Amino acid sequence: MAYLYFDSAATAPPVKEALEAAERAYTEYGNPSSLHGAGLAAKGMVDTARRQVAKALRCQPERITFLSCGTEANNQAIFGLAKTRGKRAKKIITTDSEHPSVAEPLKALEKEGFSVVRLSTKGGVLDLDRLKEELREPVAFLSIMRANNETGAVYDLAGVRKIMTLCGTDAPLHCDGVQGFLKVENDRLASICDLVTLSAHKIGGLKGAGALYVSERIRNLPAYLLGGGQENGLRSGTENVPAIAAFGAAAEKAADDKERIPYLASLREQVKRGLEDSGVILHIPPVHLPNILHISIPGVPSSWALNFLAAKGICVSAGSACSAREKKKGNPVLSAFGLPAEEIETSLRLSFDTRNTGEECALLCDALRECAKLKR
Amino acid sequence: MAYLYFDSAATAPPVKEALEAAERAYTEYGNPSSLHGAGLAAKGMVDTARRQVAKALRCQPERITFLSCGTEANNQAIFGLAKTRGKRAKKIITTDSEHPSVAEPLKALEKEGFSVVRLSTKGGVLDLDRLKEELREPVAFLSIMRANNETGAVYDLAGVRKIMTLCGTDAPLHCDGVQGFLKVENDRLASICDLVTLSAHKIGGLKGAGALYVSERIRNLPAYLLGGGQENGLRSGTENVPAIAAFGAAAEKAADDKERIPYLASLREQVKRGLEDSGVILHIPPVHLPNILHISIPGVPSSWALNFLAAKGICVSAGSACSAREKKKGNPVLSAFGLPAEEIETSLRLSFDTRNTGEECALLCDALRECAKLKR
Repeated sequence: MAYLYFDSAATAPPVKEALEAAERAYTEYGNPSSLHGAGLAAKGMVDTARRQVAKALRCQPERITFLSCGTEANNQAIFGLAKTRGKRAKKIITTDSEHPSVAEPLKALEKEGFSVVRLSTKGGVLDLDRLKEELREPVAFLSIMRANNETGAVYDLAGVRKIMTLCGTDAPLHCDGVQGFLKVENDRLASICDLVTLSAHKIGGLKGAGALYVSERIRNLPAYLLGGGQENGLRSGTENVPAIAAFGAAAEKAADDKERIPYLASLREQVKRGLEDSGVILHIPPVHLPNILHISIPGVPSSWALNFLAAKGICVSAGSACSAREKKKGNPVLSAFGLPAEEIETSLRLSFDTRNTGEECALLCDALRECAKLKR
Repeated sequence: MAYLYFDSAATAPPVKEALEAAERAYTEYGNPSSLHGAGLAAKGMVDTARRQVAKALRCQPERITFLSCGTEANNQAIFGLAKTRGKRAKKIITTDSEHPSVAEPLKALEKEGFSVVRLSTKGGVLDLDRLKEELREPVAFLSIMRANNETGAVYDLAGVRKIMTLCGTDAPLHCDGVQGFLKVENDRLASICDLVTLSAHKIGGLKGAGALYVSERIRNLPAYLLGGGQENGLRSGTENVPAIAAFGAAAEKAADDKERIPYLASLREQVKRGLEDSGVILHIPPVHLPNILHISIPGVPSSWALNFLAAKGICVSAGSACSAREKKKGNPVLSAFGLPAEEIETSLRLSFDTRNTGEECALLCDALRECAKLKR
């Protein structure tokens, strides 16, 4: 069925090149660990994808470990750093608006005796003054996302690194780069961070593949899944060759397409303008992703709006997909942004993909303007 | 490129039904956690697959958790049981021929103070007398594979459960069912075991999906990946919908096809007969899988044989794929089976799939007979 799909931040439609790469992997179907022709062909596809993803992140291919998803990469980074750095320091610095796959492992570490400092991201801006203060004490590691998955706020990681250098800390910096990857112009994440988490299905690849960049400065990160020792010992389990090959193809395509980010930004801008004088409130972080527009429709609870839009075949989300099905006690990310309860309860995330058209965006605006009239 | 592929125990070619199910998931592409139409469609596919896999394992759908691979399921089961049961007992019972994704987590637990008893599987037969003895003391849990991935030996899990009942132990029994799933006639694993690991790509599904069966007797197994709380809190991370849908389709197809196991057994039998008087040694466990034939070619090191066969486009393996690329210090599984060094060094695993034909098997026999003449 055809939807008007404005929820690519939850999962994006796969691009043609990704599907073709996966198709090839289904036909060859070898196990990359096997030494025969079929195995070598599969290994070749994984190696190609590693070069493609590395080029898109601007790092060496051997620094990329493939795993099953962004969540696994975040768990491996955080639990791994806690293991290797926990004897030196018990303080972890993060933000108050991380994705659950960072926030939940950190909560688990708190129960084990770590203390977690959550920097404010009010208004979409990282509290760098507090960071400076907190770095006076020894720190085990930092974990700060590139861009927020709900508000689209892009956090100042270059500023974080600058302060870390000034303070002379040797603590590694992990970054959940899932939403920011290939959505921030001229990004240099690999040179700023020590570990970076990536996910394929947010950039037009397939579900089932993520990656963890581990800089050469990090020498002893432990594996999280133990077994056959694949991925250079860092991630056991048969490689998901089709999804990995598709990840590489999608990363290459997105990195090469210089029109992509401006196009996404133009769709976002069109919707922003299309909502003028509609009564809809826009939440615009000072630095933001080109593909996410976060709004509230005063007097119209998110669930009403979702239903109203669904009836027109329009897919958007309220909050992140990862927590949509839970009965939530509020929304910690939007509270951290500083939104009042009324705006949180009526909030929607619109997210754009290269497949969306101006025509679709016009229909979205019409629907949202109509929706605003449902006001209770 | 077309191979004569006799390495389905490493990874099997996907069946048509699996590819079609994946295809549908690529077209719909929603995130199962999203509440809109695309999300609900994706969730529907995951629910269908859960019913299909559960039916094939003969359990209730809600007992099935999908994750990324067999390795992840084994890690979650073993580390999870160690966490929940470790306070009551420190002894773990397993075998001396488990897959690395069981063996390595257990080695890690040994370093944390657990003691691991490895039952002999000499000749492909589980030492049940020793099991009886070891169960006199409190045990944290047991982890015993359904069938060995190299020799094809099927272990007597019903016998294990019988002894456990006799001894009155409350220790949970985990089973790595990856190689045995849908390859043992009328298997009742879910009623024998408390936890069972499954993998999609060994039964004609795609790489990137595994499952963990957790019986209702196990109430507190912790998640291994933390985050958005997908899979009823047991496995966070966006569900790999295409691979999960394909897993369900492949499981249903294999479970419904009553000719499948006899056909696999007939291929194996044909090759067995075809190697008579060739000098090739057959290693036949008393109870074995229908799709694995383990042999040694006296005087012909495995690497020679692999190269010789590769030149003819024939794919087989020496040892399991998961450890093929490591420089191995011997082969613990084959040593456990009781093979002398000479037979280990010259061993090959032939594994069959429903796509293999009698004609292909005849070519395989010819090639192996020729290969036997390379004798050094």
